[in-house]
Amino acid sequence: MTNNLLSNINNPTDLRQLDEVQLPQVAQELRDFIIDIVATKEGHLGASLGVVELTIALHYVFDTPSDLLIWDVGHQAYGHKILTGRRENFHTNRQLNGISGFPKRSESIYDAFGVGHSSTSISAALGMAIVSNLKGDFEKQHIAVIGDASIASGIAFEGLNHAGVTDANLLVILNDNAIGIDPSVGALKNYLTAVKEGKNPRKNNMIKSLNFDYSGPVDGHDIFAVIKELKRLKKVKGPKFLHIITTKGKGLQQAEDDQVKYHAPGKFDKITGEIPLKSEENLPPKYQDVFGLTLLDLARTNEKIIGITPAMPSGSSLKFMMDEFPKRAFDVGIAEQHAVTLSAGMATQGMVVFCNIYSTFLQRAYDQVIHDVALQDLPVIFCLDRAGLVGEDGATHHGVFDLAYLRCIPNMIVYAPLNEIALRNILYTAQLGLNHPIAIRYPRGRGQIVDWQKPYEKIEIGKANCLKKGSKVAVLSNGTIGNNVTLALAKMKHPETIAHYDFAFVNPLDEQLLHSIFKEFKTIITLEDGVIKGGFGSSILEFSAQNNYTSKVKTLGIPDEFIEQGTIEEQQQYCKIDVKSIENIFSSF
Amino acid sequence: MTNNLLSNINNPTDLRQLDEVQLPQVAQELRDFIIDIVATKEGHLGASLGVVELTIALHYVFDTPSDLLIWDVGHQAYGHKILTGRRENFHTNRQLNGISGFPKRSESIYDAFGVGHSSTSISAALGMAIVSNLKGDFEKQHIAVIGDASIASGIAFEGLNHAGVTDANLLVILNDNAIGIDPSVGALKNYLTAVKEGKNPRKNNMIKSLNFDYSGPVDGHDIFAVIKELKRLKKVKGPKFLHIITTKGKGLQQAEDDQVKYHAPGKFDKITGEIPLKSEENLPPKYQDVFGLTLLDLARTNEKIIGITPAMPSGSSLKFMMDEFPKRAFDVGIAEQHAVTLSAGMATQGMVVFCNIYSTFLQRAYDQVIHDVALQDLPVIFCLDRAGLVGEDGATHHGVFDLAYLRCIPNMIVYAPLNEIALRNILYTAQLGLNHPIAIRYPRGRGQIVDWQKPYEKIEIGKANCLKKGSKVAVLSNGTIGNNVTLALAKMKHPETIAHYDFAFVNPLDEQLLHSIFKEFKTIITLEDGVIKGGFGSSILEFSAQNNYTSKVKTLGIPDEFIEQGTIEEQQQYCKIDVKSIENIFSSF
Repeated sequence: MTNNLLSNINNPTDLRQLDEVQLPQVAQELRDFIIDIVATKEGHLGASLGVVELTIALHYVFDTPSDLLIWDVGHQAYGHKILTGRRENFHTNRQLNGISGFPKRSESIYDAFGVGHSSTSISAALGMAIVSNLKGDFEKQHIAVIGDASIASGIAFEGLNHAGVTDANLLVILNDNAIGIDPSVGALKNYLTAVKEGKNPRKNNMIKSLNFDYSGPVDGHDIFAVIKELKRLKKVKGPKFLHIITTKGKGLQQAEDDQVKYHAPGKFDKITGEIPLKSEENLPPKYQDVFGLTLLDLARTNEKIIGITPAMPSGSSLKFMMDEFPKRAFDVGIAEQHAVTLSAGMATQGMVVFCNIYSTFLQRAYDQVIHDVALQDLPVIFCLDRAGLVGEDGATHHGVFDLAYLRCIPNMIVYAPLNEIALRNILYTAQLGLNHPIAIRYPRGRGQIVDWQKPYEKIEIGKANCLKKGSKVAVLSNGTIGNNVTLALAKMKHPETIAHYDFAFVNPLDEQLLHSIFKEFKTIITLEDGVIKGGFGSSILEFSAQNNYTSKVKTLGIPDEFIEQGTIEEQQQYCKIDVKSIENIFSSF
Repeated sequence: MTNNLLSNINNPTDLRQLDEVQLPQVAQELRDFIIDIVATKEGHLGASLGVVELTIALHYVFDTPSDLLIWDVGHQAYGHKILTGRRENFHTNRQLNGISGFPKRSESIYDAFGVGHSSTSISAALGMAIVSNLKGDFEKQHIAVIGDASIASGIAFEGLNHAGVTDANLLVILNDNAIGIDPSVGALKNYLTAVKEGKNPRKNNMIKSLNFDYSGPVDGHDIFAVIKELKRLKKVKGPKFLHIITTKGKGLQQAEDDQVKYHAPGKFDKITGEIPLKSEENLPPKYQDVFGLTLLDLARTNEKIIGITPAMPSGSSLKFMMDEFPKRAFDVGIAEQHAVTLSAGMATQGMVVFCNIYSTFLQRAYDQVIHDVALQDLPVIFCLDRAGLVGEDGATHHGVFDLAYLRCIPNMIVYAPLNEIALRNILYTAQLGLNHPIAIRYPRGRGQIVDWQKPYEKIEIGKANCLKKGSKVAVLSNGTIGNNVTLALAKMKHPETIAHYDFAFVNPLDEQLLHSIFKEFKTIITLEDGVIKGGFGSSILEFSAQNNYTSKVKTLGIPDEFIEQGTIEEQQQYCKIDVKSIENIFSSF
């Protein structure tokens, strides 16, 4: 690969030494560099390819890091990372002790604000811009780059609504490519499309209604046009909005053609773009597909079933139901709050609503879970995908708080299946009607049972199960992390000392079984793929205290810190909940 | 009071028997009835007075309860309650075992969706409307009445954005009175004001951009105009938006003139509208004023201090700082998510940001607290007003989950002051710089110390205090509920058995002191004004388990259910954390 210019750019100052006519070459080299590394190291591809020209233009025109640049979500910031001193380390992207897949303040002074969850950039940049005004620094620029999927989320609107009545030196750049991870949805998206197609006159547009200085649409791959417009905007005071049009995956034909697949394609051929076919034969299913295929199957016989996802039809596998029952399955965009209250509204009318939200994103709708669902005791079925440790996405994306923040809500059933069959059966059970809301949490990735499509069995709510008897120590596990116990026991010389119980229900607890366990065992270990503070283990401590038991209880789970990126196994090792660590603990008894 | 028509209206069917020309008289009687009762029983006044005509018109034109009517927030629903079978019980409004101050599904079939927190109505009504379409019921109407302050909140935008791409039979009525509890703010408000003043042509408005059939503005006090427009809209399919203009407090001159004070004025003279002057001399201050006045005082010397409130400048008393330092204190509207991320952005630039949010409303910004503040370890100072049991507002408004959902977040200091002096000193301490985020929670209403403006003293982070020594039982209390312990001890014949410790910090715990307590006492009682599950008491159980202590621990606090309206004292009695209950528990040892 020819790489003459890029290899000499160690920071944006180097970039700014170049002549403007050299920048298309930088763009080509940067694109090639991203493709080259991501093809073998994996990561998010399409978003960064789409903003190569914008990234170069921003660092060329603005005085980063003094001018403050925020990338919303951050999937698209690979080019930014490479131009700001992380080219040599870029091959460590998303790995343990490597660089983060997202901008991160502690990693670089060029990362003005840490991101990962969407739609925060406008609020954060506005805060910075207001402070600059207070400090009397009226030249500093504050730039938020946000996609058309992210700008439709509530917090982004709140930020725009506030910014419009300030004189803050804020530049919002709408990177409009008509897609988030899946294609964008909603009325705003249709409106923006109409603007692109010249159907709405510039002068009366929605953004102008919010008192922004609107410009665009500009072709985001015409680097000279982008630079020209950024230079002009640099001199405009107050809140400004630049609408640019880009193509996600730009420069790699397959990535342009299949933007959903090439959002994060895994390994691929850097020349042809092809993704090697992996045989899925004899592999256990992804939990996502267990959800998606089971829901589809249930929806065929239960007409009351509705499926809802905030912008993750592919990731959650709700797409299976959306394809077959488009009127009963909804992608509502990046709108977790709306997704939950919409579900509550539907539940009042007797529908059986499966609201699928990644655990980490349900944090966005915590109030709606409490106030709109649980308080009214509406039987919404929350399916919390990517619960627990999530691996390479790192600290922003773990779903480790859910057990703690959900189990304290009255009326809320909280369940984590041990395996695919349990997930399948709880989905079946939930749609039969529970009369209460339920949260079902399950992890990212594949399970362990190839032959998972067994006949449905109803699960008894609140019932825990003894998986293995033992003589000295009782292990109470919640969810799929319990399989680590089974694996650890298989490695032990004397597994007969350890009893293992699957406490899939955190709410309600199986108090009857707990009484017998506390009467029988002097030592109890709890294990969960969630924070120790306030989590499942804590609920066992509460039971013990309320019943004056004296057995010793040891709680295993995620410690009181944010866990960095790595593989899930590395993260489990760090938290000492991997198979080996568990075996060591068991062997100490 | 002449009350000829209203007294015969026991449900909307009765109302619909009347001739349209009789409705202005109904409006007059309804207004008088509301004023009459609220003048002596207290409650929310201004909002309901403003929608008297709209309320009558809606029930007159639509076929409630078959047509589904949702009042956003619900402060304005008193007229609705009175017309839908609750006239005779209306004097029990907001009282223990009385009717709720908000619409509530379990109270009436006319309350289509429970409310209390703002901006949920569009999502809920859309959910219902989509279901009606699925059921083939294309005549059913689904109506959300939402104020101009509430529609600016993110979830409302998310709802509009989704609704605009559906064919749902949804009618959104914007009740535009330019005020929430305090005057509305933001670019959308300015836009709506321009629309009202005829400055924006109807055809290019923001709502139309979202694909709604927009009509208005209509004078919301012209009952005939409102009825005419509602009848027309009843025949229009798909998403519709009616913009009506009303005056909050309409019909009571003082309430129109001082809309903030008459939002919930307490007792007043129903004829003159005057609020009796209460002598505040020798009364302890409200915690709100301790916050507001202390922050103002600190802001005078610390130029880095910023104050932020989402729409509660009066309620939180941030107004004191806003009046003196308008450039450094911000009302951002009903936008908790934005408020938190804005604070994070400002904190990155070295500002000392006090973000004041009611505890119950911080649930709206849980993800922003985790992802934007705690993960980046930014030293934002959260001041959580109305924490714990809140009294008459009831189940929707308690701030009882905060200890559980905050203490599990890494980096987050969590503190609940025992009294006004402690609140004052933690505010002082926090602005000196803690290098971590802190959440300071304090209750609604007055404290206990008249002479509270003592010289500032720095509080040692993580330090608990022994308030009273004792021989048999150690009571560990968190926050102002600890004063109930002091009062209970004062009533006891043998208080010498009880030791009392103030554990104001839930994070970090004073482990040193805990070790000595667990070594000294066989019985420990924890007390908090928050949910028992996962709360402060749970953190003590975790400490005990991690250190293999064997003392018995009894956890007192809010049980695992939603607590209905009543006085705070009645609610404490229900939860058995009032003075008498505590005394009884103590006496059992």
